[in-house]
Amino acid sequence: MIRARAVVITEPGGPEVLAIEEREVRDPGPGEVLVAVAAAGLNRADTLQRRGLYPAPQGVPSDVPGLELAGTVARVGPGVRLFSEGDLVMAITAGGGMCTHAVLHERELIRVPKGVPLVAAAALPEVFLTAFDALFLQAQLRLGEVALVHAVASGVGTAALQLNGVAGVTTVGTSRSSEKLERCRELGLEHPVLTRDGFEAQDVLGDFPGGVDVVLDTVGAKYLASNLAVLAPLGRVVTIGLVGGLRAELDLGRMLRKRARWFGSVLRARPLEEKAALARRFEAEIVPLFEDGRLRPVIDEVLPMESVGEAHRRMEANETFGKLVLRW
Amino acid sequence: MIRARAVVITEPGGPEVLAIEEREVRDPGPGEVLVAVAAAGLNRADTLQRRGLYPAPQGVPSDVPGLELAGTVARVGPGVRLFSEGDLVMAITAGGGMCTHAVLHERELIRVPKGVPLVAAAALPEVFLTAFDALFLQAQLRLGEVALVHAVASGVGTAALQLNGVAGVTTVGTSRSSEKLERCRELGLEHPVLTRDGFEAQDVLGDFPGGVDVVLDTVGAKYLASNLAVLAPLGRVVTIGLVGGLRAELDLGRMLRKRARWFGSVLRARPLEEKAALARRFEAEIVPLFEDGRLRPVIDEVLPMESVGEAHRRMEANETFGKLVLRW
Repeated sequence: MIRARAVVITEPGGPEVLAIEEREVRDPGPGEVLVAVAAAGLNRADTLQRRGLYPAPQGVPSDVPGLELAGTVARVGPGVRLFSEGDLVMAITAGGGMCTHAVLHERELIRVPKGVPLVAAAALPEVFLTAFDALFLQAQLRLGEVALVHAVASGVGTAALQLNGVAGVTTVGTSRSSEKLERCRELGLEHPVLTRDGFEAQDVLGDFPGGVDVVLDTVGAKYLASNLAVLAPLGRVVTIGLVGGLRAELDLGRMLRKRARWFGSVLRARPLEEKAALARRFEAEIVPLFEDGRLRPVIDEVLPMESVGEAHRRMEANETFGKLVLRW
Repeated sequence: MIRARAVVITEPGGPEVLAIEEREVRDPGPGEVLVAVAAAGLNRADTLQRRGLYPAPQGVPSDVPGLELAGTVARVGPGVRLFSEGDLVMAITAGGGMCTHAVLHERELIRVPKGVPLVAAAALPEVFLTAFDALFLQAQLRLGEVALVHAVASGVGTAALQLNGVAGVTTVGTSRSSEKLERCRELGLEHPVLTRDGFEAQDVLGDFPGGVDVVLDTVGAKYLASNLAVLAPLGRVVTIGLVGGLRAELDLGRMLRKRARWFGSVLRARPLEEKAALARRFEAEIVPLFEDGRLRPVIDEVLPMESVGEAHRRMEANETFGKLVLRW
């Protein structure tokens, strides 16, 4: 048992309900690793969980947020083969990431790319694993295709934009901020779409009359009809977020004519074997692209963990470009 | 140029608008084959086209129905390699199948399985290609999974039921007729669901509390919510028909939680290269299962082509079990 410190949601509410308290973290069991956490990335899901709107999955502490972390292997359990004490690792977690220590199965861990500072690596797993899994493993996005990325200036958006660039995929990216779109140009965005009053199919069909091959959808209901309208034949939509609502009318006639495919996806609730498979594949295929310098985490700011409330406020004000990272 | 006889839709309307008239059919070009048609299967799409509700794709004669045929190779164009004069073949077509002669690319043709009479083979391509493509190529239905097949007593339904049986897939099948469900039991249906007043999730979740892995959906809007409700995590819905309407509310929250996948699919509008790829794969993988006797076309009745109006009436009265075939 380790005495640790953790960010705790003391009750549902605003950023003021967050506190840092002592917690106990169990010893690593067979195949598990104890990670001394250097930093954790902040995600919108953390703010929803704080407000009581996104409960942690079963078996995960409900009051300690944190869906990704980077740190140093502090101890290994029996039978661990992939990592040793002192190794630098990063991972997504189903919760509890904002704690000085975390126990994970070794197969969920990903080595920190050489050249990426340990604290910066905490900004990487959630958004890059999400974008890689949604666009390339699920939607099977391919060289030469066109992808529409909503909220392209968000953490997932900038990760998708970078992955697309490396993969030879053209990105059309939406944002409600022209300043943020300008910054995305520096990350390779060729087709920015400003969406002040919502998103209309014509915003995309003007430049791409044949439609787009894949939509990475973080919005949900509000954009459902337009997403289907801009889709090319055999196009795929992957919905990974619902900030624009849960329910909307679907035109199945259009789905048939386009032979469209619509995927719902979440990472957090996946079982160990799926998270491990994704982590191993990411380490083999995507980590080298960070080491080459072709991908990089996009970080708005690194704050001390004690400023977690301030970080929540900034995220909820949509002031950020890229990730907020909290370090111990 | 060949003088042929064809079923013609003289104007939009009831079965009485169908007539048999003389038509000219062009000679086969490079890679093409002239088929002397022995028989053509009747499909619901033919009745919709007759009523003016389902226009033929561009480049296909709009007034000659017929989406599948079986016959004898009468002549081959330059460069044809797969088939020779006298070979027995079957195929899906985008229209024009109800004619004594048809020109198709050789790679769209499928050899008639040994042991299946030529006229019976006309009942086979549309429903078995549709079910094979939707369930096994698109939804990637696998050994040990559970599939819900709506309208299981229909042509596509009985094809799906048989394919599932050979593949080690459990079928839950719906029908509005208990008599038809009883006949499906003879084809291996273990879980019949009578749907007199529509389809409710509980009809399936009682026996399969974990849900079904795949839904073959011929209904569309009317069953959309229930189809999503009975889906297991990572389940797939393939919508291939819309007799229950085009538009319905989709619960994207449920799509995300289940990580569900929804595919729209049609065969008719596909380009040559896709039809050819499907035909070649079907010939290699599914035709041998007919030759083994593990699959068989399910035929309600074979009528002379002159009775095409009567065949339309019977199909529209939902009186049939399996396919109606019209022979020259």
